[in-house]
Amino acid sequence: MEVVMENLAGSCPIPIQDYPHILLAHGGGGRLMHQLLEKMFLPAFGNDMLNARHDGSILGVGGARLAFTTDSYVVRPLFFPGGDIGTLAVNGTVNDLAVCAARPLYLSAGFIIEEGLPTETLWRVVRSMEHAAREAGVQIVTGDTKVVDRGKGDGVYVNTAGVGVVEHDIAVDPSRVEPGDVLVLSGDIGRHGIAVMAVREGLAFENEIESDCAALWSLVAALLDEGVRIHCMRDLTRGGLATALVEVAEAGGVAVRLEEAAIPVREDVRGACELLGFDPLYVANEGRLVAIVPASDSKRALAVMRAHPLGSGASVVGTVVEEAEPRVTMRSTIGALRAVDLLSGEQLPRIC
Amino acid sequence: MEVVMENLAGSCPIPIQDYPHILLAHGGGGRLMHQLLEKMFLPAFGNDMLNARHDGSILGVGGARLAFTTDSYVVRPLFFPGGDIGTLAVNGTVNDLAVCAARPLYLSAGFIIEEGLPTETLWRVVRSMEHAAREAGVQIVTGDTKVVDRGKGDGVYVNTAGVGVVEHDIAVDPSRVEPGDVLVLSGDIGRHGIAVMAVREGLAFENEIESDCAALWSLVAALLDEGVRIHCMRDLTRGGLATALVEVAEAGGVAVRLEEAAIPVREDVRGACELLGFDPLYVANEGRLVAIVPASDSKRALAVMRAHPLGSGASVVGTVVEEAEPRVTMRSTIGALRAVDLLSGEQLPRIC
Repeated sequence: MEVVMENLAGSCPIPIQDYPHILLAHGGGGRLMHQLLEKMFLPAFGNDMLNARHDGSILGVGGARLAFTTDSYVVRPLFFPGGDIGTLAVNGTVNDLAVCAARPLYLSAGFIIEEGLPTETLWRVVRSMEHAAREAGVQIVTGDTKVVDRGKGDGVYVNTAGVGVVEHDIAVDPSRVEPGDVLVLSGDIGRHGIAVMAVREGLAFENEIESDCAALWSLVAALLDEGVRIHCMRDLTRGGLATALVEVAEAGGVAVRLEEAAIPVREDVRGACELLGFDPLYVANEGRLVAIVPASDSKRALAVMRAHPLGSGASVVGTVVEEAEPRVTMRSTIGALRAVDLLSGEQLPRIC
Repeated sequence: MEVVMENLAGSCPIPIQDYPHILLAHGGGGRLMHQLLEKMFLPAFGNDMLNARHDGSILGVGGARLAFTTDSYVVRPLFFPGGDIGTLAVNGTVNDLAVCAARPLYLSAGFIIEEGLPTETLWRVVRSMEHAAREAGVQIVTGDTKVVDRGKGDGVYVNTAGVGVVEHDIAVDPSRVEPGDVLVLSGDIGRHGIAVMAVREGLAFENEIESDCAALWSLVAALLDEGVRIHCMRDLTRGGLATALVEVAEAGGVAVRLEEAAIPVREDVRGACELLGFDPLYVANEGRLVAIVPASDSKRALAVMRAHPLGSGASVVGTVVEEAEPRVTMRSTIGALRAVDLLSGEQLPRIC
């Protein structure tokens, strides 16, 4: 018992003088969130599966290889062009399983509802979860409902956890990424974040920008079925393409070079980003992934993606290069090389 | 697409004129929560696994039999005698797997943090999750952190989902309960709820009442190892013993008869319940379960429980009786028979 008390009294690994309180940026996918992960969660819960720092964890259970992942969804507003918190809660977790190259099978659903939420609103969210689950081919098999007092929530927060099965022997993992590999991005970036921000800021565009929110398993399955030897995959949610690649570079110990001119961003999204002061590289997507594949497989990966409705705008956006330091750099449209790093502050709070 | 839009526009199954808004009682484990489950979640997400209405879902994945469950924890205050939100978040989910007779293996952890939470407080919660996970023999293998604006949360909410493995061929399910079965309760009831309420209401007792919060798998494993043929099990959280048994009676289509005199309630807990106007039958526990076993196995079940530190106060508290209607009744200490039903209002908000 004494040992335990000593353990529990161990001093906080985040320097209290610098960060006495949790800030919005601690949930933003940038540097502060990574600090929380590296200094607090990983040392406390540390195990090989968590340390792999994948979007989900690969587990051996009773002879099967499973993927297991979770996300809470706190997006504001609850409904936005192209989706809502229910669509996100299903597709986001399905996509975390998909980029582990696992077939998504089962979801849990945990609702934290603020007292006073219109019952009709909850019903709309539940119906879109049902619809999204059906589209994605997953079943919601267990759940929980909590209600918190007025002013202690924001309508409804949804947590989903997902279980999938790995049906092949390909290891998809940052540690497999190597110099010469090619980055294939499944389509244009930045739409989800801008769709949400536009509603929040009351912006009107000539044509409404819709979230790209979609379940990506069928796209991943097409790549696997064609035998594309995927080294690593990420979906590009919180923190966008830039953050996903910095994470891969750090976890895999490799250097990634992006070509700015090759990264598709729609004109209206680019315009909105300029207006709002955002860099599209860091804006969240909910239906995009980047696959890192050997150069010899890149043409096939691109062809498979382009033949799929969710990858019709796919393009090769960079390569893994031979450099001493794990980092991400980008060659700009005018040829200059710049470092791409994690954001220090908060770009887009409560985007997913 | 039109079909989908029609689906989504389907009218809300909860009568809006009666319940235009979600109330605290919708999360309280009583009648309103059941209405939400029966009318909204089950029809929307309906599948055999969810319809089994167990504490967790039993899934066949790649040849293995898995249990999968989730709970969000929103207890107020975060720290209370005998535990905290972190201990609860691990043990609560471990226990939901245990009462499915599944060995708990892996947990996910999703944090929804309110901006401004002292970093030190988060660290205390994380450390107690780590400690509880170690004690329970589970690993936290995947996680997520979201931060919401000040005034849109309450310190921190924690969601855990759990995966366990069923290593035997006993089906533990309300549908297996039959007349003649015996109810074995693992110990005294009401401590968790009273421990939390005492802090919240600023009550002081001669001896502090501590939550019974504990991981119950080792107790269940002892029953299984001894070959006790468990028909059904429930842990007695939100809504207490009464609610758990009403759920079993309804799901299994059986009638349960409780003996009030046999139900252990500590004197100080009984006193606090009288003071606060609570019925101990409905007060939450976090380290108690009821096992429903064939009469021929009840002595063995009782002996195994009493030999285990978490079941030393076990007793036989009732039987399953032959009656036409599925319901729960209790013979009082003075011999009168009364119906035990779900609560209509909210007894103890945010107790877990």
